[in-house]
Amino acid sequence: MTEVATVRRSRLTPEREAELYRAVLDLLRQVGYDALTMDAVAARTRSSKATLYRQWGGKAELVAKAIRHLKPGSIADLDTGSLRGDFVALVTREDDCTIAENAALMRGLAMAVHGNPDLLEAFREFLIQPELEEFRRVLGRAVDRGEVRADNPALGYIVHMMLGAFATRTLIDELPPTQEFLISYIDAVILPALGVPTT
Amino acid sequence: MTEVATVRRSRLTPEREAELYRAVLDLLRQVGYDALTMDAVAARTRSSKATLYRQWGGKAELVAKAIRHLKPGSIADLDTGSLRGDFVALVTREDDCTIAENAALMRGLAMAVHGNPDLLEAFREFLIQPELEEFRRVLGRAVDRGEVRADNPALGYIVHMMLGAFATRTLIDELPPTQEFLISYIDAVILPALGVPTT
Repeated sequence: MTEVATVRRSRLTPEREAELYRAVLDLLRQVGYDALTMDAVAARTRSSKATLYRQWGGKAELVAKAIRHLKPGSIADLDTGSLRGDFVALVTREDDCTIAENAALMRGLAMAVHGNPDLLEAFREFLIQPELEEFRRVLGRAVDRGEVRADNPALGYIVHMMLGAFATRTLIDELPPTQEFLISYIDAVILPALGVPTT
Repeated sequence: MTEVATVRRSRLTPEREAELYRAVLDLLRQVGYDALTMDAVAARTRSSKATLYRQWGGKAELVAKAIRHLKPGSIADLDTGSLRGDFVALVTREDDCTIAENAALMRGLAMAVHGNPDLLEAFREFLIQPELEEFRRVLGRAVDRGEVRADNPALGYIVHMMLGAFATRTLIDELPPTQEFLISYIDAVILPALGVPTT
């Protein structure tokens, strides 16, 4: 099964894959998830629908992976030597314009989950789980350094804390999640919950 | 303006108002927000549409107030003498079945906000703001008792922390937000962020 998957993947170069993801994101921003069709993606990228389905299985997986591709590099590679440093590096990888743009995109997609359970499934598998894995590596280093106790119960609520910041900021406050806001939230909520002194 | 409002309100007794809210919630659970009509509410409660519009202005306000009416009493009245006690009392007012039922209802409504900006506006005005006011009174008492420092920055992120717990639990984990989960989150995240020792 893994071999077959490897063979299937090898048909596209990373450059071609990136180009396809960019086209998907452009279309998403223009028409939204519900109106996005595999036909439109195929037409815009001059690929066959068969190729798209072979490579990604369907629209939900293609969109989830395109979103993941937006993230610049792996957060697990940001090793600044302190947990606060790693978190700050994480939320300052993108400038405020990019954060606002991506938050608007995610807001639309979060709503599209309504009536598209396969999209939630794809998000969980290809976006949330891989990011959570990377968070675990960042947090694991903090535990190894002695910054966070291995049994700190907040370690199990990283997604809850982060998602709360993004969702409340964009949906309730209707403000963009700027770098300044995110750093302030990390210092006020996440680090204290993890028992890490912020000053 | 206030007098007019008082006169308008006085047409319905609290019992009649409660009966109307129950009918709205029943309909919401059966057909969802988008398919819910003022005609159906009027028919089921044997009231005129004119009365409904006079009293609530429209569907969004009626639904937001019906949801708020679900909450048993004011959380500001829960004065146990400690912040942890108040929070635990808050999340144990409803049993796990009721919490799960209401979470399912809120999940549907959160999705209905997509394409219904007036619903978000009504939620903000008639549900989130009043609840936030009550939280502020609970937190104000904790500050007065010396449990929380008045300048603790996490005081500004109560909604972010709470919403993160509910949204992640129901949407991402796809588990009901049980009393046990909520108390564990309060102890792991909210109280440490507020600088309140949990043991």
